[in-house]
Amino acid sequence: MADLSPLFTVNSVAIIGASKKAGKVGNVLMKNVINSGFTGKIFPVNPNEYEIEGLTCFSTLSEIPNQIDLAVVCVPALNCPEVLEECGKHSIKNAVVISSYFSEIGPEGLQLEKRLVSICKKYGIHLLGPNCEGMMDTRIPLNASISPSFPKRGDIGFISQSGAMLLSIMDWSRTVSLGFSRVFSLGNKADVSETDLIKCLANDPLTKVILCYIEDVQKGKEFLEVASKATKKKPVIILKSGTSQAGTLAASSHTGALVGSDLAYETAFTQAGILRARTMTELFDLATCFSYQPLPQGDRVAIVTNAGGAGIVASDTIENTGLSMARFEKETLDNLRELLPTEANIYNPIDVVFDAKADRYAFALETILNDPNVDSVVILVCPTAAADPENIAGKIIELHNKHPDKPVFAAYMGGFALAEGVKMLTRAKIPTFTFPEPAIHSISGMVKYARHSDHETEGEEISYNDIDPNQVKAVFYDVIRDRRSVLLGSEAAVVAEAYGISTAPIKLAITPEEAISLADTMGYPVVLKIASPKIMHKSDVGGVRIGLNNADEVHSAFIDIIENVQRYLPSVIPHGIEVSKMMPKGTELIVGMTRDVQFGPLIAFGLGGIYVNLLKDVSFRLAKGITHAEIASMIAETKASTLLRGFRGERPADLMSLIDMVARAAKLISDFDEISELEINPLFAYPDGYVALDIKITIDL
Amino acid sequence: MADLSPLFTVNSVAIIGASKKAGKVGNVLMKNVINSGFTGKIFPVNPNEYEIEGLTCFSTLSEIPNQIDLAVVCVPALNCPEVLEECGKHSIKNAVVISSYFSEIGPEGLQLEKRLVSICKKYGIHLLGPNCEGMMDTRIPLNASISPSFPKRGDIGFISQSGAMLLSIMDWSRTVSLGFSRVFSLGNKADVSETDLIKCLANDPLTKVILCYIEDVQKGKEFLEVASKATKKKPVIILKSGTSQAGTLAASSHTGALVGSDLAYETAFTQAGILRARTMTELFDLATCFSYQPLPQGDRVAIVTNAGGAGIVASDTIENTGLSMARFEKETLDNLRELLPTEANIYNPIDVVFDAKADRYAFALETILNDPNVDSVVILVCPTAAADPENIAGKIIELHNKHPDKPVFAAYMGGFALAEGVKMLTRAKIPTFTFPEPAIHSISGMVKYARHSDHETEGEEISYNDIDPNQVKAVFYDVIRDRRSVLLGSEAAVVAEAYGISTAPIKLAITPEEAISLADTMGYPVVLKIASPKIMHKSDVGGVRIGLNNADEVHSAFIDIIENVQRYLPSVIPHGIEVSKMMPKGTELIVGMTRDVQFGPLIAFGLGGIYVNLLKDVSFRLAKGITHAEIASMIAETKASTLLRGFRGERPADLMSLIDMVARAAKLISDFDEISELEINPLFAYPDGYVALDIKITIDL
Repeated sequence: MADLSPLFTVNSVAIIGASKKAGKVGNVLMKNVINSGFTGKIFPVNPNEYEIEGLTCFSTLSEIPNQIDLAVVCVPALNCPEVLEECGKHSIKNAVVISSYFSEIGPEGLQLEKRLVSICKKYGIHLLGPNCEGMMDTRIPLNASISPSFPKRGDIGFISQSGAMLLSIMDWSRTVSLGFSRVFSLGNKADVSETDLIKCLANDPLTKVILCYIEDVQKGKEFLEVASKATKKKPVIILKSGTSQAGTLAASSHTGALVGSDLAYETAFTQAGILRARTMTELFDLATCFSYQPLPQGDRVAIVTNAGGAGIVASDTIENTGLSMARFEKETLDNLRELLPTEANIYNPIDVVFDAKADRYAFALETILNDPNVDSVVILVCPTAAADPENIAGKIIELHNKHPDKPVFAAYMGGFALAEGVKMLTRAKIPTFTFPEPAIHSISGMVKYARHSDHETEGEEISYNDIDPNQVKAVFYDVIRDRRSVLLGSEAAVVAEAYGISTAPIKLAITPEEAISLADTMGYPVVLKIASPKIMHKSDVGGVRIGLNNADEVHSAFIDIIENVQRYLPSVIPHGIEVSKMMPKGTELIVGMTRDVQFGPLIAFGLGGIYVNLLKDVSFRLAKGITHAEIASMIAETKASTLLRGFRGERPADLMSLIDMVARAAKLISDFDEISELEINPLFAYPDGYVALDIKITIDL
Repeated sequence: MADLSPLFTVNSVAIIGASKKAGKVGNVLMKNVINSGFTGKIFPVNPNEYEIEGLTCFSTLSEIPNQIDLAVVCVPALNCPEVLEECGKHSIKNAVVISSYFSEIGPEGLQLEKRLVSICKKYGIHLLGPNCEGMMDTRIPLNASISPSFPKRGDIGFISQSGAMLLSIMDWSRTVSLGFSRVFSLGNKADVSETDLIKCLANDPLTKVILCYIEDVQKGKEFLEVASKATKKKPVIILKSGTSQAGTLAASSHTGALVGSDLAYETAFTQAGILRARTMTELFDLATCFSYQPLPQGDRVAIVTNAGGAGIVASDTIENTGLSMARFEKETLDNLRELLPTEANIYNPIDVVFDAKADRYAFALETILNDPNVDSVVILVCPTAAADPENIAGKIIELHNKHPDKPVFAAYMGGFALAEGVKMLTRAKIPTFTFPEPAIHSISGMVKYARHSDHETEGEEISYNDIDPNQVKAVFYDVIRDRRSVLLGSEAAVVAEAYGISTAPIKLAITPEEAISLADTMGYPVVLKIASPKIMHKSDVGGVRIGLNNADEVHSAFIDIIENVQRYLPSVIPHGIEVSKMMPKGTELIVGMTRDVQFGPLIAFGLGGIYVNLLKDVSFRLAKGITHAEIASMIAETKASTLLRGFRGERPADLMSLIDMVARAAKLISDFDEISELEINPLFAYPDGYVALDIKITIDL
C-alpha cells in the first residue's frame, strides 16, 4: 500500500498548468498555495509565461533544477498523461490531478484515466484524483486545492469523495471555528483511495480524528484491515451516502462508483469500529466533540441546568441514546444539598434553578466533576434574568482545565443573549450547542467508540484440522457434471458434514429396499422426500411423507411418492428419494448468507421457521476470519437469543455448539467463493447441541 | 371550556406588584409591557409608589376607574389570593400569575394554588400560571412576560410548559429571524391548560402553526377532542418531553406533572394528527417550514444541486424518510437535456454541475416547478468557484413568487461565502438550512400533516344494538360475590359473547356426566381444563387434556384431572372443569389492552402465540370511539397483517370480521372501566371468520 506520509513534509510544489488569468483553475491554485503561507518553493509550469504571481515560471518540469515533493496538475485531461510522464522522469513521487473529464464522463474518460494509472505505476507516483479539488494541510501549511477557504489549524483529518461537499465544509468550518490537520479530495480515486488516506492519517500524530465523506469503498478487504487498525488508535467517523436506492442511482450517475450493499457497509463499519454518521450535522458534531474533549471513561452522564424543562429533554435523550444518568455518591448529594438552595434538585439532572449565577453553576459543576460516578457532564444554560452566561462560561472553562480528563459539553439555549458565552466556550474547546440533544448524541458516539477501542482484539481467528474441503469439491464436481447449480439435500448434508456441521441423517435411496435399509440404520421415524432440484414445492405434488414408523410404511410411502410425482410431473426424472431421520423439535433458527461485491461473504443468523421472512430477525457479520466472540455478539443481537437463553421456562440451548456451527458455516462460505447461496432453515437448537435440518446450497462458477 | 379569545384584544393591563427597582420582576414586567409597543392603557399597582416608569401607580385595583382586560400578578405567593379576589370584584376576566412557590414546591404550595383556582372559579377568571413567565402577543402588541426578548411578528403560536425554555426560544428565535403570533408560558397549569390554548390558537386567524413544548397532558379526553379539531385547521407540532424513565423522574421533580405513559401519548398524538417533534431542532425546523411555505400536494420531491455528492445525501434522506423522488415528465426531461450542459444529470436529482451560475439554477428550477409530477423542490448550493449564491437566491425567490403553491426549500451548504444568500432567502421565507437533511425531514413532516388533514373524519363512531351489558354485569357480579378478580375462562367467554365476539364453545362442568353432555352438544374433539383462577400453570399440574374424541375419553380425562389436581394442589378447590371445543388452527393473533391515566383504555392488536412477548408485533389505538377505518389502519401497521393477507400462498383471512371483533373488544373495555386486563391469545383468524380462543379478563373495582 501507498506510503503517503511524505505528503506531510512537502517542501516544494510544482503547479503544472499554472495561469496568470484570474478565475482560471491554474491561477486559483497559484494563489491558494501562496496565500496559505506555504514556506517551501513554488514552481509554476506553463510554456507561455515567464512569471506568474511574482514567481518565475518554467516551460516544462525538466527545466526545474530542484527536487519537487508534490506536483499539482491542472492541464487539460488529454495532456495529463504527458505531464505525468514528465513527473516520473523528474522523480516526483506525489501528484494531484485536479483536471476533470476522466472516468466520470464515461468509457472514453476511463481509458484516459487508466493510462494515467499505468504511467504512475511505472514511475511509482502516488496519484490523488483525477477530477478532485486537491489537498490542504494546515501544518505545513499548504493549500494545494481550488478551495477558496483554507481551514483553521486543528486536529481533524478529512477525506471527501465529493469535491463540492469539501468546498462546503471548508467554508462552513470557518463559521464554527472548526480546525483541520489535513484535508483530501478523493476525486475519481484512480490510485490513492480512502483506505490509503485513512492509513496515512491513522499514523499522523497531528490528526486526532479521521472524518470521511464517501460514496463507496473499492477494496473492501483492505479497507477493513486498515480501518480496524486505525480505530484502535483514533476515531474514524464516516458519512457513507448512496445508501438508499434513490441515493445509489444518484451515486452511479455521479462518480460512477460501483457500490456495495448498505447491509455490507453497515456490517463492515461496525466490525471495524467505525462510527457511522447519519447526517452531515452529526458528522461534524461528532468530529467537534472528539477533537475538543477527552474520551468519557463510561456512559454515566450528569446534567446541570437552570431550567427543569431543559433537564427533562436532556434526560430523555440520555435514555434514548442508551447512555445512563449518573447516580451521585452520598458525599456529592450531601454537598449539593448543603450549598444549593432548597428549591434546587440535587439529583441528576441537577437543577440549580432560574436565579442561578456563575458561582452556583461552578459549585455544582465542581462537585460532580469530583464524583467518580460521573463520566461526562453537560451544562445547560437558559437565558434567565439572573444567568450570567459569560461568567458561567468562564467557570466552566476554569473547572474543565482543573479536571481535564472528564469531558464537558454545554448547551447554551438561546441566541444573542448567550452568543458571547458560546464564543468563549468554543475558543476553549468546550463543544457548545444550542440545544441539548446534539451534545448527548455526540457523547453516545464517543462512548461507543471508547468501548470499541477498549476491547482487546476479539479472539483469535479459528483454525480447523477436522474439515475436509476435498469432500466438498467432490460433491460440487458431481453437481457440475450433472449440469446443476442446486445441490440435493443429501449432497448439501455431505458438504455441511465435511465442515463439521451436524446434520440430520439424510441419504438418497433409489429403490424401496434401499430406503428401508437406510431407515433401519438411521432409526425410526423417518421422512421420505422426492429428490429433484426441479421440484420446488415437493409437498404440493405428493412428494413428501413424514412420520414413517417401520419398514412397511417406508415401502408403501416410497411407491406412493414415485406414483404421485409421475402423475403430476411426468416429465421430471427424479434423482431418487431422500430418506431422513425425523428429529425432535428444537428452537427453530436460520443460518444463511449473502455475498457483497466489496466485502465478500456475510454470514447471517436469526430466528428460523416459516415466519423468517416476516420477522426479519437476522443479524450479519462478515464471514472471513470471524471469531467466536463476534459470533456470540451476533447471536446476542437477535431476538432468537432470548429463546436460546431459555424462554418461558424452557431449558437454555447449547450456545457453545451453535457458535461453533456458525463459525464452520462462515468458514465454508469463505473457502468456497462459488457458493452463492447457503440456507439452513430450520436449524434446531437443543439443550445439548443442534442439528442442521434443511440445508440449501447453490453454487455458481 | 375557557374562551380565551379576549386575550387577543387586550386594551388595558394592570400590573399588580409593579416595582420601580430595576431587576425586580415587577419592574421587568413594567418595562416589557411598555417596550413592546403596547398602545393600550397600563396600570401599575403598588401601595408604596406614586409613579412607576412614568406611569401613575395605584395602591389597589379598586382605585382604577377603567375596565381592565388583563391582570398580571407578581406579588408574593401568599398575597396572590387576595389580589385575585380584588380582580374578581373589579370584573377582571383574565389574569396571569407570574409569582412562584405554589404546587411546584409541594403540598403546602398546592393548597395555596387550589385557593387561587377556587377564587378564579367564583369570579369566572381565566388564570394563566401560577409560576409562569407570562404571555406575549406580537399583534396587539404586548409583552406581558418577564422574557427580555420580544419575538419578531410572525404566524407561529407557541405554548411552553417550561418557562426557561420559553426564554431560550425567544432569545434564539431572533438570531434565526423566526416570527411568532402569540406565546404562552403555562407554568403550573392550575387553570388554563395546553388544551385551552390549543383551542384558542386553532381559532386565531393570525396563527398558522401551533407549537407546544409540554411535559404532560392533564385531561386526556378533552385534549384529544380539541387537538383533533385543531389539526384539521392547522398543524399542531408538539415536543413532549419526559418520555423516558429518566425524563419522567426529572419531570416529576420539576413541575410535579402526573405523567401518562409514552405509549398513550404516542397513540393519542398520532390519532389526533399531531406531529411529534423528537428534538428541539426538529420542532423549530418544522415550525419554520410550515410557517414559510405552502403544504406540498404530495410526497414527490425534486432536487437541484451543483454537487453530485450533496444530491446523493439528499436522495438518501428522501428515501429514508419515506418520501419519493419525483420522476419528471418527458417534456421536462427534454427541456433539461436541451438547455443543460451534457455533463449535467437531468434525472432527479438534477445536477447542474460545478460551474452552474444563477441562470442555470433558474432554468432547472422553473422547468421542474412546471412539472405536475413535482410536489416540492429542494435546492442545494455548494460554494463552487462559479456559484453566485446571491444571484441564485434572487432567482429562487423570483420563481417561488411566480409559483407560490409549490413549496421550495434550500440548503446553502457552507458558511461565510453563502451567508448573504441565506439572509436573502430567509427574508423571503424560503426555509434555508446548512445541510440538506433537515429540509427533507421537514418536508416529510409536512407531507404527513397534509395527508392527515386531507382525510375525511375517518368513519363514524359505531353503534351496536346487539350487545348486552347486563349479561356482563351479571358475570362481574358473580365474580365479585366470589371475592375474585380474575374471571374463569367460561365467564370470560360469556362476557365476550355478550359483546358479540365469537368464542370457542366453553362451558363449566361439575361432574363427568355433565362434561360428556356438554361435549356431545359442542361436538368432538374437545379439551378439558381445570377451572380455577388460583392455578396459573394448569398443564404443569396435569390439569389439561386435549384432543378428546368421545364420551369415554372425556369421562376418564375428567377423573384424571381431578385426581392430578388433588394430588399436586390439595388445598385448591376447583370450580369444576371447563369443556371447550377444539378449534382448527388459524392465524394466531392477540387482542389486548392497557389503560392510561390520562387517555383511558388503549386496545392492542398483533401477532399472537407463544412468541408474542418476544416479537412485540403489536399496535395500539385509543379504544373510545374507535372507528372501523382506524382499526383497519391499526391492523395494517402490524406484521400480522402480512399473514392475514395470505402469506406463502395461504388463503387470506376474513379481515372485515376481525375489524368488527376488535371494535367490539374496544367497546367492551370502553364501557367497563373496571376491566383492568383483557387478553385474547390466541385469537384464530380464518378465511371465513375468527374465533377468540383463550380469553383472560381481570376486573378491578
